[in-house]
Amino acid sequence: MSTAEDTGAAPVRTVRAGEERRVKGAVLHAPGGLDRLVVTDLPDPGTPGPGEVRVRIRASTVNFHDRGIVTGVLHAPDRHVPMADGAGVVEAVGADVHDLAVGDHVVAVFFPQWQAGPPVIDSLGSAAGIGRDGYAREVVVAPAGTFTRAPGHLSHTEAAAITVAGVTAATALEGLAPGEVVVVLGTGGVSTFALQLAKAAGAAVVVTSSSWQKLQRALDLGADHVINYRDTPHWGQRVLELTGGRGAERVVEVGGPGTLPQSITAVAVGGRISLVGVLTGVEGLVPTDALMMKQARLQGIVVGSRSTQQKLVRFLETQRIHPVIDRAFPLARIAEAFSYQGTGAHLGKVALEL
Amino acid sequence: MSTAEDTGAAPVRTVRAGEERRVKGAVLHAPGGLDRLVVTDLPDPGTPGPGEVRVRIRASTVNFHDRGIVTGVLHAPDRHVPMADGAGVVEAVGADVHDLAVGDHVVAVFFPQWQAGPPVIDSLGSAAGIGRDGYAREVVVAPAGTFTRAPGHLSHTEAAAITVAGVTAATALEGLAPGEVVVVLGTGGVSTFALQLAKAAGAAVVVTSSSWQKLQRALDLGADHVINYRDTPHWGQRVLELTGGRGAERVVEVGGPGTLPQSITAVAVGGRISLVGVLTGVEGLVPTDALMMKQARLQGIVVGSRSTQQKLVRFLETQRIHPVIDRAFPLARIAEAFSYQGTGAHLGKVALEL
Amino acid sequence: MSTAEDTGAAPVRTVRAGEERRVKGAVLHAPGGLDRLVVTDLPDPGTPGPGEVRVRIRASTVNFHDRGIVTGVLHAPDRHVPMADGAGVVEAVGADVHDLAVGDHVVAVFFPQWQAGPPVIDSLGSAAGIGRDGYAREVVVAPAGTFTRAPGHLSHTEAAAITVAGVTAATALEGLAPGEVVVVLGTGGVSTFALQLAKAAGAAVVVTSSSWQKLQRALDLGADHVINYRDTPHWGQRVLELTGGRGAERVVEVGGPGTLPQSITAVAVGGRISLVGVLTGVEGLVPTDALMMKQARLQGIVVGSRSTQQKLVRFLETQRIHPVIDRAFPLARIAEAFSYQGTGAHLGKVALEL
Amino acid sequence: MSTAEDTGAAPVRTVRAGEERRVKGAVLHAPGGLDRLVVTDLPDPGTPGPGEVRVRIRASTVNFHDRGIVTGVLHAPDRHVPMADGAGVVEAVGADVHDLAVGDHVVAVFFPQWQAGPPVIDSLGSAAGIGRDGYAREVVVAPAGTFTRAPGHLSHTEAAAITVAGVTAATALEGLAPGEVVVVLGTGGVSTFALQLAKAAGAAVVVTSSSWQKLQRALDLGADHVINYRDTPHWGQRVLELTGGRGAERVVEVGGPGTLPQSITAVAVGGRISLVGVLTGVEGLVPTDALMMKQARLQGIVVGSRSTQQKLVRFLETQRIHPVIDRAFPLARIAEAFSYQGTGAHLGKVALEL
Repeated sequence: MSTAEDTGAAPVRTVRAGEERRVKGAVLHAPGGLDRLVVTDLPDPGTPGPGEVRVRIRASTVNFHDRGIVTGVLHAPDRHVPMADGAGVVEAVGADVHDLAVGDHVVAVFFPQWQAGPPVIDSLGSAAGIGRDGYAREVVVAPAGTFTRAPGHLSHTEAAAITVAGVTAATALEGLAPGEVVVVLGTGGVSTFALQLAKAAGAAVVVTSSSWQKLQRALDLGADHVINYRDTPHWGQRVLELTGGRGAERVVEVGGPGTLPQSITAVAVGGRISLVGVLTGVEGLVPTDALMMKQARLQGIVVGSRSTQQKLVRFLETQRIHPVIDRAFPLARIAEAFSYQGTGAHLGKVALEL
Repeated sequence: MSTAEDTGAAPVRTVRAGEERRVKGAVLHAPGGLDRLVVTDLPDPGTPGPGEVRVRIRASTVNFHDRGIVTGVLHAPDRHVPMADGAGVVEAVGADVHDLAVGDHVVAVFFPQWQAGPPVIDSLGSAAGIGRDGYAREVVVAPAGTFTRAPGHLSHTEAAAITVAGVTAATALEGLAPGEVVVVLGTGGVSTFALQLAKAAGAAVVVTSSSWQKLQRALDLGADHVINYRDTPHWGQRVLELTGGRGAERVVEVGGPGTLPQSITAVAVGGRISLVGVLTGVEGLVPTDALMMKQARLQGIVVGSRSTQQKLVRFLETQRIHPVIDRAFPLARIAEAFSYQGTGAHLGKVALEL
Repeated sequence: MSTAEDTGAAPVRTVRAGEERRVKGAVLHAPGGLDRLVVTDLPDPGTPGPGEVRVRIRASTVNFHDRGIVTGVLHAPDRHVPMADGAGVVEAVGADVHDLAVGDHVVAVFFPQWQAGPPVIDSLGSAAGIGRDGYAREVVVAPAGTFTRAPGHLSHTEAAAITVAGVTAATALEGLAPGEVVVVLGTGGVSTFALQLAKAAGAAVVVTSSSWQKLQRALDLGADHVINYRDTPHWGQRVLELTGGRGAERVVEVGGPGTLPQSITAVAVGGRISLVGVLTGVEGLVPTDALMMKQARLQGIVVGSRSTQQKLVRFLETQRIHPVIDRAFPLARIAEAFSYQGTGAHLGKVALEL
Repeated sequence: MSTAEDTGAAPVRTVRAGEERRVKGAVLHAPGGLDRLVVTDLPDPGTPGPGEVRVRIRASTVNFHDRGIVTGVLHAPDRHVPMADGAGVVEAVGADVHDLAVGDHVVAVFFPQWQAGPPVIDSLGSAAGIGRDGYAREVVVAPAGTFTRAPGHLSHTEAAAITVAGVTAATALEGLAPGEVVVVLGTGGVSTFALQLAKAAGAAVVVTSSSWQKLQRALDLGADHVINYRDTPHWGQRVLELTGGRGAERVVEVGGPGTLPQSITAVAVGGRISLVGVLTGVEGLVPTDALMMKQARLQGIVVGSRSTQQKLVRFLETQRIHPVIDRAFPLARIAEAFSYQGTGAHLGKVALEL
């Protein structure tokens, strides 16, 4: 990690004194809060060293945890550059960089240290926009492994949704077989991505929401069935009915303890619940006997590996999938982007364009 | 196995002497040959015993090994009823049959003893149409586990293609991830099925053939790329080019030793070659060092389990896939069906309708 | 299932009227309770029909759920023969039985319908000793698939422990790699079996208990580390220390909600908690966020498939493992066996010998 | 990769002119041949840069392909330092190195770019001792990821065997279940390692060799059965007999085309042949139909990932396994070490000590 660059505090390497170039970026002052988020000039990170690339960031999208950071619910360093998602164009490459070239469209990787295979990291501390500076800034210099190629058919704004929501959805669906049934809770960024990926992988998808309007959008995106959980609070039972009593082979569970009992009812014998979120809390009453009797798998997921991202990029290209962007805001209106995301009115991703 | 019924030689249980009912069927006399295949009357197999179902067979489709049987290349008992594929309607169920009911559309299972999990059988001796009587007859009585439900949207003729070609293609693609590249050799029954399944599972598909006409049909069915191996004998290299040097994650290999060297060139590092056929011979020069260096997997496949068939039925239904039937012949013209299949002019399956 | 035979109510087939043979068995009268468990004469189930075997049961062992049945906590039919475990000798085989022969030592299979592959059953209703008659009787006639071969080096009493405890432990450890760390909670039947299997598979094992005496026995059986959870209530933290902060790749969790928080602390990033029991309750507060951040897998397990049992038999034979039998009681003292098991003083299995 | 250091041609960074330190190393002059292998002084690679470690190499062991390099059969650059295996002690660490510290005992990783997950590399060009300088030298400076921790209970000489033979054997046995049967061909480095690992993982092992003396040693190391293939050329059949007709779930195949037909006979239905070597040639007649009918998997293997090495280190420690070192030579007698290895008289590894 080129920590100096990442903190934005680095002395510019290639620019002589008195000529220091500046780039725009958003900076969060401790202890956080939307009113402590300012867009300002940051030192230009300069030219990339060996193994590094210089990327002009063109877009980011808002994640649930980004909101925790900017509102001060999650801890962040003082003068922190938020945003975990990032997409842009390679402006320069250092020595010994072989797989990226100037002009390449790229997407940031959430856990650059997790190249492939099973999970290796148990903390968000090393992730951009959390423990180190994120992508709400015009230029980043970082090791080449911090990025992957972006899908050729996507805009930067669409591509930015890959870093967290896309890779999380892909990890949650790993091992899905065509013809299986997937339940997707809600229509947030991960859920909408999971809906699109599951459909393109040959699965049948059931979407839950409390909004008929969002459910209609889910149907437009290909959902096979929708359930309004306000009308049908015991929606797990409804999933069983829709599947002839068999249940869903996979549930993409973004709620946590508040929704787990219904998810356990909905899941098929031997099925899997991919636990990707904690929207309803961090601890709760779980009917462990039901999980046991279903011989189901409750699988904790935190984004995924760089290899998963590379495979996702190819999947999106092969199937010409476009991530769903609800609305985009310019960098200067970053606080507004978070306010809008906080209303929950969006479907898919709220974006930031630089 | 209710062997008595299966051989067609069983005394009819529920019909009194002098009233014996007869059903039509094709019978192959030793030592085989299309001229020794006659359509005749067979004893009605009667009512199903405990655990059994009586199925009125409506269709079958021709497989490569069926041809070996009827031409006498593969050994079969005298007075053998050929055809491994079978689809039809349940006419009666015995005691203790719970998952099938009268009127259900069903498809025969190639290996009824192989319910689920890894392979358990190393011989075709127990398969219908090979070591015991097959489905070229109007009525069969057999244990319920000999069949699965058929997809609701298919004709009997389409459904019959599932028994061998469908399940073989599904097994060959097991574990395929969306966005991966699949190479399918030729346009026979398994290959065409594999093309359709791989596309519906989100993969990119490359098809090889020596006929531009068939390649055009493959493109119509969704193939992303086609290669005429007559023009491009080193087609493995062409697959590398089409995939940016990466190669195909999966090759559905129906040829065996004659095509394996190209398949090994075409396969990606860590990829898999599913060996489902021996069209070019039973033994050959294999560049084992290239297979090793690619760290590829050469996986022998013989049809698949009943569980794989059940999952395939759901996949076909979810994606509304229709197996490709080239031409159908009535039972009376069974020899003609085999002659036509022998010309190699077909794409997809040659069918028999009863 | 030959239900008639299994209920013990079948008319004896091969014995003429007036000569009816009888076999000893334990019968539980509704609504249950140890005082309603009587040893009595049952009709001999007679000769095996096609596909069936007649087995002289020589031993059974007591499971947690058997106790639920006999004490009336779990529902059972009136005049129910309890006990899910069973081992004995084949006395006769019916037609079409190929893999078992007279004289073979055999062990009962918990879910005969689940041959292989992923779970297919979500209820205990079909299991012997629960929804149908169990093995607390001298003779059983049942389909051959209801049994597997027993390990050659085991007594019937040792072999009987395989049906539930052995197969559950084997399923809980499926996919374990040598060199991994396994935490085993307590020293009951499943836990002791898991300790033995994990050690023989090359893993390191940590055992928890509240009894130093039992922990000493665990060390004798090969445990690498032991933790007295009375002295060390935050034993999850202790597991982290013992593993250099890495945690255990596998936890065999028999407690459920009461112990899950410690298990989640103990498990490694990407590790697996095999949930095989509900000793501490059926529902509880689970720190789902911690499970998520660990990217751990909480896997519900209910015994396992017939194929898992067959593999376990070979594993036990290869490694000459002897299941731990704490004490054996004759059939006539079945109530006493349950009383003793209820004290919790045992380590390993409490057995019943016929 | 710090290529400059690796070629031994780097200017020493921290030593002033006129004071240049030198380290001993073996250098192979083009076009190869044991007589062109000289032990000489090399420039000291200096202090480690950011992310790098300086390791004093204490041992290496000879691999089949090392022999190809030094004899000139495989291409190597002029003035090449051979040897892929390496073990030693960390002498200094650069900035940003977190998982290794001065004094740590370490082992070299064959493919440092392959951290974890499925294979990613299809050429040996980047491996030490092949396309870049190897470990036949006293001091190496390289990125920290080029090494892993060594098992605490091993000598450097024993640890050096891990790089190639150990990791290859571990990859070949990946997914092995306890109780399965493994056939190991011969008693070379990989085979002997595989025998030890398979036994410690709870498998039964059959070893083949043409030498009764070596087979006796295999029995001493725990082999369950041995076969002298000179007396029993159709040894595949013998494996079937030893396993009750079932065959071996895994074959560690070091021979390639010359032995594959017997390996295919020996393997169980659904089993796996791990193809790790080409001792009998690079291409040969393979009975592909038999492989297909067995539904077996022929899996090409080239060493393995860094993650596999880390797991192997823990496995060796947990089970206190000591790799088998046949004989050790000092660096000055490196040519003699290769000559001895060439005689084939050894069992296990021939080592080089620095």
